[in-house]
Amino acid sequence: MDWLDEVKWDAAGLVPVIAQEQATGDVLMFAWMNREALSRTAELGRAVYFSRSRNKLWFKGEESGHVQQVHEIRMDCDNDVLLLKVTQKGHDPSIACHTGRHSCFFQRHEAGAWRPVEPVLKNPDEIYK
Amino acid sequence: MDWLDEVKWDAAGLVPVIAQEQATGDVLMFAWMNREALSRTAELGRAVYFSRSRNKLWFKGEESGHVQQVHEIRMDCDNDVLLLKVTQKGHDPSIACHTGRHSCFFQRHEAGAWRPVEPVLKNPDEIYK
Repeated sequence: MDWLDEVKWDAAGLVPVIAQEQATGDVLMFAWMNREALSRTAELGRAVYFSRSRNKLWFKGEESGHVQQVHEIRMDCDNDVLLLKVTQKGHDPSIACHTGRHSCFFQRHEAGAWRPVEPVLKNPDEIYK
Repeated sequence: MDWLDEVKWDAAGLVPVIAQEQATGDVLMFAWMNREALSRTAELGRAVYFSRSRNKLWFKGEESGHVQQVHEIRMDCDNDVLLLKVTQKGHDPSIACHTGRHSCFFQRHEAGAWRPVEPVLKNPDEIYK
């Protein structure tokens, strides 16, 4: 059986993907893949997602230069979620988020409010010219 | 504005949730929450998800004893994904997966196949009696 067929793609042909920085364990971002994105990710060793807003393949870093080198692709017990172990390239310290932050998960719940707790490492206007 | 209203709930009133073990950084599982689940999680300091298969609140550990103590609730840049930093209780070494493994992400892609690479720490028949 083709390993791509073992993934339980949802009704839209997508599967959720978590990207985790291999060296630090930090959860960097959450995105989606379709079958072609996963196939290309495995083939290229870099993260290729499916952009639901643009409705096409999204070669992570294609605009920002913030490419993700993929070391491992994991799948969960229900075959419907993927986890990538990556090295986040293109900036030091690493930036995965389009806001210029290290991780997309920069808002923390504190006493009934969401507070940004991670610094902007690079101005998004300088990332996306 | 109520912090619960800032979450972009999907058409089904749900949001995806990643649970990460605080001490190790391991990604343990992926699940869903509705508004009540998130509210209860914050109130109780333990993970409460929404089970899509059973269509009701799922107090993680209610059957298995594998409760998740919640230290932090994070939200991503688009306000549509949550990340919990947890301590996985109930077994040492910790078990989050219903298969009796530490993490749900125990299948690794290797040369065109998915290979289980994490041991079963406890027989599921002994977890769910």
